[in-house]
Amino acid sequence: MGFFDDLAARIGATDSVVSVGLDPDPDRLPAFLDADLPRWAFNRRVIDATHEHAACYKPNAAFYEDPDGWRALRETVAYAHGKGVPVLLDAKRGDIGNTARRYAAILDDVDAITVNPYLGEDALRPFLDREDAGVFVLARTSNPGARDFQNLEVGNGKRLYEYVAQRAAGWNDDGNVGLVVGATAPEELAEVRELVPELPFLVPGVGAQGGDAEAAVEYGLADRGDGPPVGLVNSSRGIIFAGEGAADEDAYFRAAGDAAKRLKTRLDEYR
Amino acid sequence: MGFFDDLAARIGATDSVVSVGLDPDPDRLPAFLDADLPRWAFNRRVIDATHEHAACYKPNAAFYEDPDGWRALRETVAYAHGKGVPVLLDAKRGDIGNTARRYAAILDDVDAITVNPYLGEDALRPFLDREDAGVFVLARTSNPGARDFQNLEVGNGKRLYEYVAQRAAGWNDDGNVGLVVGATAPEELAEVRELVPELPFLVPGVGAQGGDAEAAVEYGLADRGDGPPVGLVNSSRGIIFAGEGAADEDAYFRAAGDAAKRLKTRLDEYR
Repeated sequence: MGFFDDLAARIGATDSVVSVGLDPDPDRLPAFLDADLPRWAFNRRVIDATHEHAACYKPNAAFYEDPDGWRALRETVAYAHGKGVPVLLDAKRGDIGNTARRYAAILDDVDAITVNPYLGEDALRPFLDREDAGVFVLARTSNPGARDFQNLEVGNGKRLYEYVAQRAAGWNDDGNVGLVVGATAPEELAEVRELVPELPFLVPGVGAQGGDAEAAVEYGLADRGDGPPVGLVNSSRGIIFAGEGAADEDAYFRAAGDAAKRLKTRLDEYR
Repeated sequence: MGFFDDLAARIGATDSVVSVGLDPDPDRLPAFLDADLPRWAFNRRVIDATHEHAACYKPNAAFYEDPDGWRALRETVAYAHGKGVPVLLDAKRGDIGNTARRYAAILDDVDAITVNPYLGEDALRPFLDREDAGVFVLARTSNPGARDFQNLEVGNGKRLYEYVAQRAAGWNDDGNVGLVVGATAPEELAEVRELVPELPFLVPGVGAQGGDAEAAVEYGLADRGDGPPVGLVNSSRGIIFAGEGAADEDAYFRAAGDAAKRLKTRLDEYR
């Protein structure tokens, strides 16, 4: 079973395409977390509150880049797996030769990863060669600066993100390739879907960034023949920090669970 | 004093533009390193052997992405600083909004970083805004797959890596921007130098990858008016693993020192 088979099963079981971004920003962690590993303590409570509505957890590597951080990440991954939820590491990695092989070793721990295409196919090959793992290639990201380079025309009227999408489709021999395409650019979501009907998308930007949830579902999911259409719509801060201002700890995490459920319900309207 | 001022002083003091890549590949670490933190033990001995010939140390983040790894990295950075050598983290990061700010926090520890431009200016802004730190933007990398996207024509006969180089020059208000341009593409090195005369380059690919040392020096260094021309020519495996097959531990690390000195001497012929 490859990653996208597992994900299809999870989407079927939970009736959810919600990816919950586990980005424990130290500046926003609630004060009542006084444990040795506050990020792990926070993530555990978020997972407890949200797992029934989560197709996937997506920790962003930026929040774990220190000794305690990597321990917190490992505990988080193990706990998510204990709840039956796959984990996609949002790492946006891309490097060459022996360094790329080294980065790809993280796929021993997590189920899928995001990668940056700028360095070309050979930089991504160690990830792509892990047939069991999901590899989401950045195509059109959700930030304003995405236009700076991704929207450049590179020939035949194609933009760079469209060309990247097509190349990524050519790397999909093992059925393990997906794309990152932001919900903040709905027309571009539609264009990329037309170019690569078979690739599942990870669609960020629906929560705090204000992206288009209907377009995320309509264009983000790929019909793989059997089972439900597969793809992920991510919200990070909109779920995990939904409880800011809550009266107590239980209310804080209940708000995260409610936010995940609300997003699932909203997305299900369009499925 | 910004990073490139410090680097100019270091180049002047050591008469060297050699960047020593600290990539302690676990598959190649010598067997005699049985310490708690073998990567740190290895790097310490490499630094002891090479620091007189090193303008800079360049650890690649891929080799430190686990709890012990981040501890080894911190010890390594502190030890390099103790020898008066600046540290450039080869991380090739690029992410959006609050995650980009989080990644940029590593500049509290290291002096400079490599970043990936695919996500656009706003993704790099938290790095660029650290006026004291060096920010090397990937333009033309040294791997074969660099051609896949970086060499696409994006208008006016310009290739993507040339356009990235020009945009990066526009981000250099604080004099803290450099470029990564590989020695495996010497004509392209020359072209980029012509486009952005003022930016220092980090030129990888001279050692194990077989790049052109003369072109690396001729085009990699930028004349900043006062002090020596500034830039870095990196070798990683060609220096740190030069002692493979040595008779004993001392000979092993002596070989690393000799390799660093040889590269410095070779590069100095062209300066």
